[in-house]
Amino acid sequence: MPVPTVVEVLSAVFQIGPTDECADTSTLRVLLRRIDDAWSLPGGGIDADEKLSDTVRHLLIAQTDERSVRHLEQLAVFSDPHRVAGSRTIASTYLGLVPSDAPPATPSAAAWHDVNSLPPLAFDHAKIVDAARHRLAAKLSYTNIAFALAPAEFPMSELSEIYGAALGYPVDTTNLLRILSRRGVIAATGTVRRNGRGGGRPPALYRFVDAELRVTDEFATLRPPL
Amino acid sequence: MPVPTVVEVLSAVFQIGPTDECADTSTLRVLLRRIDDAWSLPGGGIDADEKLSDTVRHLLIAQTDERSVRHLEQLAVFSDPHRVAGSRTIASTYLGLVPSDAPPATPSAAAWHDVNSLPPLAFDHAKIVDAARHRLAAKLSYTNIAFALAPAEFPMSELSEIYGAALGYPVDTTNLLRILSRRGVIAATGTVRRNGRGGGRPPALYRFVDAELRVTDEFATLRPPL
Repeated sequence: MPVPTVVEVLSAVFQIGPTDECADTSTLRVLLRRIDDAWSLPGGGIDADEKLSDTVRHLLIAQTDERSVRHLEQLAVFSDPHRVAGSRTIASTYLGLVPSDAPPATPSAAAWHDVNSLPPLAFDHAKIVDAARHRLAAKLSYTNIAFALAPAEFPMSELSEIYGAALGYPVDTTNLLRILSRRGVIAATGTVRRNGRGGGRPPALYRFVDAELRVTDEFATLRPPL
Repeated sequence: MPVPTVVEVLSAVFQIGPTDECADTSTLRVLLRRIDDAWSLPGGGIDADEKLSDTVRHLLIAQTDERSVRHLEQLAVFSDPHRVAGSRTIASTYLGLVPSDAPPATPSAAAWHDVNSLPPLAFDHAKIVDAARHRLAAKLSYTNIAFALAPAEFPMSELSEIYGAALGYPVDTTNLLRILSRRGVIAATGTVRRNGRGGGRPPALYRFVDAELRVTDEFATLRPPL
């Protein structure tokens, strides 16, 4: 006998942004909506005629006004029988990424929060944010997923700041450039950033080669024959 | 208003095995159960008090008698509104792996099928098998996931046959040894296989260093500081 079940979708949407209005340092932020006195991930019940990923996008826009998600992937199903009291509620969760230079949304009851100082979250949403952070950190190390966090063009110092903020520890800019170039993940645009603050040589600009997720380091020996 | 929904779990469980009883070549096989005249993936409705991964394991044993799953991970949620006629049925799917030397189960109404010559499958189960094959192929290239397909100890020729069967094209044994050794994925046991067929030097045996999934090639520069 099928058990009566409620299915909800929830999305952990990340962006790299300043730690606060005046700060010069970046951090990983997650988009939360306020419901009464609690903060929760965007999401909710599903629609009868939609795929879940479409429902995720619709709810995200309706609840947070955020329209700049560049990458969205299934994260995991959270199915602990007691995660929501009262009814068996299964959450199909998503990881979303917004580029750091996306136009700010003007959410009514939503806000970006530094993942390192989150308010108490509803239900098991803190666990979902944790799982999303781990997925992002893992994929930074074997995919080109940072394309969805970075602006279209960037100096390497900015990209290493994005990696560092997403990982939670500093990343060496020179090594990052070497690895990502060698693997064909990024390429120089051939141009420099014009509006340098202060003096010095204007930095070279780079871009991601692909705008879709791909594994960047398949064992060469495991590639399919041409 | 939450939509009345049925949640089911389905698992695509793979094993490398002979293409047929007498064959000397290996292939990737998936475990299917027969319901009336159709073949389908093991699975079914969920239990009120269980996490979905537990339900997957219970249903797998009940339906196929297979108890040797060494690795089980969430695959994806299949949520097309029309995937099952009549009611909104959402499938939370899993990828399972059984080592090639696991004791054969004695299933009543289940059988291993070569993924390259599947019978017609129920609903969207063929799509689920496809997604599981792609996930496995991808993870073979950046994780140690083959630990769950291989016996505890193996000559390299056997491991490259496992990779080849899982990927669908031949893999060079020497290159495979070089890459997996360098990355610390496998190690020599220091012993050789005694019961060689025919003549020649008995082959050196290897084992997987870890018996849990891990990413084998994180960018060194992205590793957390010690």
